[in-house]
Amino acid sequence: MAKDFIGYQALTDQALRGVVRDALRRIEKSGLIGAHHFYLTFKTHHEGVDIPDFLKEQYPDEMTIIIQHQYWALKVKDDYFEVTLTFKKLPAPLHIPFAALTAFFDPGVQFGLQFRSEGDAKQQPAPVMVPPPEPEVAQAEEAPPVAAQPKPA
Amino acid sequence: MAKDFIGYQALTDQALRGVVRDALRRIEKSGLIGAHHFYLTFKTHHEGVDIPDFLKEQYPDEMTIIIQHQYWALKVKDDYFEVTLTFKKLPAPLHIPFAALTAFFDPGVQFGLQFRSEGDAKQQPAPVMVPPPEPEVAQAEEAPPVAAQPKPA
Repeated sequence: MAKDFIGYQALTDQALRGVVRDALRRIEKSGLIGAHHFYLTFKTHHEGVDIPDFLKEQYPDEMTIIIQHQYWALKVKDDYFEVTLTFKKLPAPLHIPFAALTAFFDPGVQFGLQFRSEGDAKQQPAPVMVPPPEPEVAQAEEAPPVAAQPKPA
Repeated sequence: MAKDFIGYQALTDQALRGVVRDALRRIEKSGLIGAHHFYLTFKTHHEGVDIPDFLKEQYPDEMTIIIQHQYWALKVKDDYFEVTLTFKKLPAPLHIPFAALTAFFDPGVQFGLQFRSEGDAKQQPAPVMVPPPEPEVAQAEEAPPVAAQPKPA
C-alpha cells in the first residue's frame, strides 16, 4: 500500500479521543445518568500521567479505572482529565492526559473505542478504532491484586 | 440496551467528519501527493448543498465525486468545502457541507469512513464508522450515465 502522507490514523485517533473528552464533559456537567459508566484504560507511565506511586508500581504498563458509583472532583480539560477514585479505601487523585488513553468503554450502552498510545505509535502496526464486543478490562477500583508482587529493585 | 443519553454515535460521527475536513485541508494546503485521492459521497438534497441543477436531477439521492487529477478552487471551511469539478467538459462549482457527507474513501491508502446523513438520523438504525473493504462508489466525474433518464415532471 502507498505511503500515507495525510496520516489518517493519527487524525482518526485524535478525533476519537475527542469523543472521550466530550463524553466526560457531559458527565462533568450533568453526572452519570441512565446506565452509563466508563472504563478508561491508560498507560500509567505515559508522559503527563500523574497518579500515586503505588498504582504505578501495581500497574507498570496499563491500568483501567472505572467511573461509576464513587468518583469525585472530575475535571475535564482539552488535553487531560482529573478524577479522584478510592483504592484500598484511600482517595487517590488521578491526572490523565487523553493522549495516554488506550481504551474507552461504556458498558451501559456497549460503546467502546481503542487507541494506540503515542509512545506505541512507532511500534504497533495499526490502531483499532472499532467498538470491542466485550470489555477487556482489569478491575482496578478498590480491588487489590490476588497476590502481592514484590517490587522490582 | 439502555438508552444512550450521551449520544456517542452523534459525537463519533461529528468527530470523524472532522477527519475528512482535516484531510481536505491538507490537500488544500499542499495539493495531492503520493497515491492519495478522494471519493466523497454526499446527499445531493441535503440542506446547504449547492450544486448545479443537472447534477441534482441526475443524482436525486446521493452522488460521489472524485478529487484526483482535475479539480479547482478547493476551499475548506469549518462546516463545508467547495471545489470545482468538470462534468461533461463543463466546470461545475460544488458547495458541500460536511454534514451532507455519507462516505469518504481514499483508495490510495485504503482508508474510508461512512457516515449517516443528518436527515437519515431518525430513519436509520445505526451509522457505520469502519473503513469499507472495497470502495462502493459511483463514478461521477465526466462519465455520463449509460442511458439518459427522462426528467421527472
